[in-house]
Amino acid sequence: MKDRNVEQAIECLKSALGDKVTINETVRKQHGHDESWFDTSAPDAVCFAETVEDVSLVVKTCNEYGVPVIPYGAGSGVAGLINAVKGGVSLDLGRMDQILEVRPEDADCTVQAGVTRKQLNQYLRDTGLFFTVDPGADATLGGMAATRASGTNTVRYGTMRENVLTMKVVLPSGEIIETGSRARKSASSYDLTHLFIGSEGTLGTIVELTVKLHGIPAATSTAVVQFSSVAAAVDSVVMALQMSVPVARLELADETLVKAMNDYSDLGLQVSTCLFVEFHGTEGGVQEAAEIFREICEDEGAIGFSWTADAEETSRLWRARHEAAWAFMAMRPNTRNFSTDVCVPISALADCIEETRKDVAENLDLTAAIAGHVGDGNFHVAILVDPSIPEEKKRVSAFYDRLVVRALEAGGTCSGEHGVGMQKLEYVKTEFGPSAIRLMQAIKDAIDPKGIMNPGKKIPAPEE
Amino acid sequence: MKDRNVEQAIECLKSALGDKVTINETVRKQHGHDESWFDTSAPDAVCFAETVEDVSLVVKTCNEYGVPVIPYGAGSGVAGLINAVKGGVSLDLGRMDQILEVRPEDADCTVQAGVTRKQLNQYLRDTGLFFTVDPGADATLGGMAATRASGTNTVRYGTMRENVLTMKVVLPSGEIIETGSRARKSASSYDLTHLFIGSEGTLGTIVELTVKLHGIPAATSTAVVQFSSVAAAVDSVVMALQMSVPVARLELADETLVKAMNDYSDLGLQVSTCLFVEFHGTEGGVQEAAEIFREICEDEGAIGFSWTADAEETSRLWRARHEAAWAFMAMRPNTRNFSTDVCVPISALADCIEETRKDVAENLDLTAAIAGHVGDGNFHVAILVDPSIPEEKKRVSAFYDRLVVRALEAGGTCSGEHGVGMQKLEYVKTEFGPSAIRLMQAIKDAIDPKGIMNPGKKIPAPEE
Repeated sequence: MKDRNVEQAIECLKSALGDKVTINETVRKQHGHDESWFDTSAPDAVCFAETVEDVSLVVKTCNEYGVPVIPYGAGSGVAGLINAVKGGVSLDLGRMDQILEVRPEDADCTVQAGVTRKQLNQYLRDTGLFFTVDPGADATLGGMAATRASGTNTVRYGTMRENVLTMKVVLPSGEIIETGSRARKSASSYDLTHLFIGSEGTLGTIVELTVKLHGIPAATSTAVVQFSSVAAAVDSVVMALQMSVPVARLELADETLVKAMNDYSDLGLQVSTCLFVEFHGTEGGVQEAAEIFREICEDEGAIGFSWTADAEETSRLWRARHEAAWAFMAMRPNTRNFSTDVCVPISALADCIEETRKDVAENLDLTAAIAGHVGDGNFHVAILVDPSIPEEKKRVSAFYDRLVVRALEAGGTCSGEHGVGMQKLEYVKTEFGPSAIRLMQAIKDAIDPKGIMNPGKKIPAPEE
Repeated sequence: MKDRNVEQAIECLKSALGDKVTINETVRKQHGHDESWFDTSAPDAVCFAETVEDVSLVVKTCNEYGVPVIPYGAGSGVAGLINAVKGGVSLDLGRMDQILEVRPEDADCTVQAGVTRKQLNQYLRDTGLFFTVDPGADATLGGMAATRASGTNTVRYGTMRENVLTMKVVLPSGEIIETGSRARKSASSYDLTHLFIGSEGTLGTIVELTVKLHGIPAATSTAVVQFSSVAAAVDSVVMALQMSVPVARLELADETLVKAMNDYSDLGLQVSTCLFVEFHGTEGGVQEAAEIFREICEDEGAIGFSWTADAEETSRLWRARHEAAWAFMAMRPNTRNFSTDVCVPISALADCIEETRKDVAENLDLTAAIAGHVGDGNFHVAILVDPSIPEEKKRVSAFYDRLVVRALEAGGTCSGEHGVGMQKLEYVKTEFGPSAIRLMQAIKDAIDPKGIMNPGKKIPAPEE
């Protein structure tokens, strides 16, 4: 039976917002899960906000009735970010998809939170500029900021943390604030922008973002390098970074993933550990960079190197990289793709991946592949799990525990880019310890005293 | 007469820390002001912390007695950051000057908060790496993080915001936390690192920092370009940024400042608006960049261009730039150098500077010069004020009010790098509005419920 408060809140919202509010079961269920392996937790209602005022009204109403609000972007998260574990209202921002202003001379633009990265880059095509953050999925910019997303391109252009200048945020009270300004730097206040970036909807609802844009490089080229070991590939990456070779993407795929990509996207690569590398610069510059990179890789024992500046071939390769998750999932139909997300200092990366591979081989007994944004020290172990087999889930969890301990001991973090959601609460506790967790909870309580914003996510319960 | 709580707290600290605690008047007065024009407000005592545990003990004791704590680095701030406006204990971190670990393979290092930037770069000399943030003064890294400092080099390497990976912070309760990890990116928690960067000692005391390092460029060259108008200089900068010319520093000096630098450092420059530009890269790269930059400047009507890759000449020029404040102050002895600090989107920079120059000429009637980190949209109006003449201070304040309104209207911020301190409380209110100010105060109250940390700074009193 539904909580009386929830019923009243939904009635209130319906009378104010009409058919922007629905309790349709299909819609609710669709809003009750992301791409993670967690069971669906459908919200009690879904509100499709069309304006900042809509968002403010929804939040204010829910705050009055003490009803959870879960901001929803594209639902493409992978850490259980939007599951309505305590019911409440899913606040869908997908209709707020206006690109409000592009300012080429300042290399920035202001968009509503529901704009997706592909939509934005399509729009920008004729300006000579692009938005660099690329997590693979066609996520909304609001969702990407809320998750502190990154992906390929980060090694050169940074994550959402480095690419958001200011945001408009609706606080749990319904008040609307601007977190900063369009100035490229500021020392004028607490860093509210970064407080909301990565807060996963637990502190407020991001409704507008002003983000940095970058010039589309005059030339782009891609290299595919093959190695007989992951260690050799990672050592090449470390060396290239130390020598400041101007790479824009530095992606590792292990042989399992390469095989999957071959089968799915007809890539025709030799099955071995691969680095996919992209260079941005002038025509001469990318050629020079590729040449230096080739020498580094050969010194580290690369067994194959191919290079292309052909736009079509480049695009085909990166499409295959972006489809790697689908390619991988095709290896074991009817399973879920569970992905880990540790990130370590670059000096620890080779050992951390090697030990993890050993652990996979010796203890996991499931189809697993490694894909890494290795330029940042971030790598994912993707594992195909049948969620109906508890024993499999148990083995994955034990493996994940060991992986996180390994990464934290190396000075790393339990999440490079996927966020905490409901997936990594225990790991955050291990990473930060009780004093920092209490601090996070104190901040949460100060901003959201009734705890309505995306409850059950991001912050683990403090130790007694 | 001294507050009884303060007396008891000092007694407590003395018995625990011995002669690390002093109530010597000279020392107290020296700790009661920074480089700003505000009157000295001496603390009741000064504690020279030597360990993290010392800091924790001081803070815990002061919290118990409700006594203010003002973290003190090098005292080189310019916004009234450390004046003990409500008395209490100045917590001097200068003796915590150990460089704890340098990790060349990760291009990072961990230092205590009292390490100064010159000390660090001296230490790093043989590693091929350097710490990039350079506010001019030889500030401590703890102070620089607390202020969210930047300075020259920012256009290429970023501010403290982009260069701190993680910090150890002592909370007002005396608890010690690590704000993050050494991973280059993370999505695992609220962004505690950025919450403390720029918090000006009002949320906690930074005791250790892990910062990014960068490779010392293979080649460095410097150009000095002269213009007949500020507008032409700024237009050249905007064009160079849009064309992604790889500049590392982009500093503007107006003719008043150039004259002062000539007199003080015997520079022998033609008295005109100048850009000082530094290029970092390979030998061929810096030459190419300088050539492109020269063409841009000539198109914009530059009247002189000189270029040097000679280390000694480069060093002489930048020393002169760093001494510009002293050079300027020599123009009117026995005055204070009052500096404004707005930062605007680059597209608004030329107009904003032009209007400001007009305002100086028509309304200020004081010796004033403009120096700008123009690659970031940040510029300072330095004004020589006799603080004993109230009429001068009044004129400066009115001028500053107009300048800030101008910058905010252009989408900018009231402080690019100096921080708020006690100088810009009203401007922060204008910039952010009542809802955001209440949010900042709520965060402050949650972390520092007794309000002991650097009271009277950073956050303006909320509107009723």
